[in-house]
Amino acid sequence: MVAANRVEQTQARATIDTIVTLTQRDMGRVNDLILSMAGSRVELIPEIANHLISSGGKRLRPMLTIASALAHGYEEGDAHVKLAASVEFMHTATLLHDDVVDESDLRRGRRTARTIWGNQASVLVGDYLLGQAFKMMVDVGSMAALAILSDASAVIAEGEVWQLAAAKRMTTSEADYLSVVDAKTAALFAAAAEVGPVIAGKSMREREAMRRYGRSLGISFQLIDDVLDYGGVATDLGKNTGDDFREGKITLPVILAYEAGSDEEKAFWRSAMEEGRNDDLALAKAVDLIDRHGTLKATIDRARAYGAEAYEAAASLPPSLAREALLDVVEFCVARIR
Amino acid sequence: MVAANRVEQTQARATIDTIVTLTQRDMGRVNDLILSMAGSRVELIPEIANHLISSGGKRLRPMLTIASALAHGYEEGDAHVKLAASVEFMHTATLLHDDVVDESDLRRGRRTARTIWGNQASVLVGDYLLGQAFKMMVDVGSMAALAILSDASAVIAEGEVWQLAAAKRMTTSEADYLSVVDAKTAALFAAAAEVGPVIAGKSMREREAMRRYGRSLGISFQLIDDVLDYGGVATDLGKNTGDDFREGKITLPVILAYEAGSDEEKAFWRSAMEEGRNDDLALAKAVDLIDRHGTLKATIDRARAYGAEAYEAAASLPPSLAREALLDVVEFCVARIR
Repeated sequence: MVAANRVEQTQARATIDTIVTLTQRDMGRVNDLILSMAGSRVELIPEIANHLISSGGKRLRPMLTIASALAHGYEEGDAHVKLAASVEFMHTATLLHDDVVDESDLRRGRRTARTIWGNQASVLVGDYLLGQAFKMMVDVGSMAALAILSDASAVIAEGEVWQLAAAKRMTTSEADYLSVVDAKTAALFAAAAEVGPVIAGKSMREREAMRRYGRSLGISFQLIDDVLDYGGVATDLGKNTGDDFREGKITLPVILAYEAGSDEEKAFWRSAMEEGRNDDLALAKAVDLIDRHGTLKATIDRARAYGAEAYEAAASLPPSLAREALLDVVEFCVARIR
Repeated sequence: MVAANRVEQTQARATIDTIVTLTQRDMGRVNDLILSMAGSRVELIPEIANHLISSGGKRLRPMLTIASALAHGYEEGDAHVKLAASVEFMHTATLLHDDVVDESDLRRGRRTARTIWGNQASVLVGDYLLGQAFKMMVDVGSMAALAILSDASAVIAEGEVWQLAAAKRMTTSEADYLSVVDAKTAALFAAAAEVGPVIAGKSMREREAMRRYGRSLGISFQLIDDVLDYGGVATDLGKNTGDDFREGKITLPVILAYEAGSDEEKAFWRSAMEEGRNDDLALAKAVDLIDRHGTLKATIDRARAYGAEAYEAAASLPPSLAREALLDVVEFCVARIR
């Protein structure tokens, strides 16, 4: 498979520079719009919103929206800018609520909003940003884009509830886990990419290709994140080894190690993930078991397969710098691990 | 003022029977849609949603949407049903998040969702219902209705954050408080009523009348609620005297009593509302001060003035059973106090 080969071979040079350069001018407008829409006469709102907005995320999702629109020949107007800002607000609202639900104290090495301003403010400012996101979508005036993004909004929340209900159960299967990733992460990537051809007036064929691109990229992205948490060397900043383990998050490397493990090993995983016996000694044992069963490699293989699917979906586009940018993102995503 | 007189004179016979009878058939469809859209393969979602949905609320907001649509000649189709269900979901999502933010254990005499299923599930299921609300709006396909409801969604959240930031400060002025009520309660009433003429294809004049109707009704409704909390005799079930006081909620009867109070009284209010010295003895003193300064009557007067405004706005409609229903709701709302 050519796409898969290219994904594997080009890791070394993979970069998000192409999409950053391509979207630079439009992302400037997205940032202005974000700052303006995060404003409010209620000072606490921009204070909290800006804490997250300025937290050094890559803004990959809104860049995907811009690049996808450009790849389909969208040029005039600001629909792509507004939808990109909406996508980022949806993401930011999810992070605010996630940190409350997961009781997280740190995100990307900074204190979470909830530890500074409290859970209550985090919940409500998340609600506000979601409302503002919908207002921007309405402003664009595309009912199809609204359908895609409101659907994603419900799917993301549904995935979160599912994860909450199933959380910390070692009986979670690979298929279960992928369903959660599909909902929690891939749905917004898929929506972010799909609205591009929508505002460019393209047909269902183009929409479906971009949806597949975003979804596969999102799953690939999350699986690589899972790997990085167990000692993959991160080429970008942000995550510390063992964060998922200490929070009792059951991810694919763990699920596969549990499935392949002896009875004694299964008992260890249950005690660590279900009962919270997750100190540094337990983490060392977890890393050792994951290493012994080769489940990082198995997870990377799956991430590469999804990456290849994303690559193929974007490769169907007519040649352009925007197409190259979308392809490079896939390679960058998979190449974060080395 | 004829409207004001009628509001005062007809308290005794005021009833929501007219709107209940008028909307009965359509509300059956709204209820079916609510149950179906609160469904999910994730069982926890319908479990929590149905806990709130079956909690015996009057469903006043969706009835307003139905009645407003009918009053403007909307007959065919199911846009009013879908928008009514959206409005109820927005309301339900707000209640779920509110109970988390206020740390409430009881609502209408029943345990809140957060005490049964936890704060985390309440936050996420609220998010899910909001997503489903937007999906139903998109399904209706009216960009104007979407604009009205997404705007309300942001305004409600903004009002909640404002209240959180200003909460428990006795410096809250009457104007500040009315701004919060306008955002937290009246915005959804206004949106619920305004979408009626929108889907009936009416002009801005009709829209503005219904917006004014809903907004004034919402403020009136909230002020009467505030009064009921300090010993007004409730003609409907639900609230217990002193709930607001014990939760440290600063409402209009308290603000007016504080403003009219001596230095010693002001110190009492600060200690009760800002420092939580709100036992039964303090409640008795609060009721006494409110009584001495006549601030329940002053609050009722303001509620009646808003009621009269709502009445006038709906009185501009051509005569119909739906118009009578909208007018009777105003009277019912104000007449809950006696």
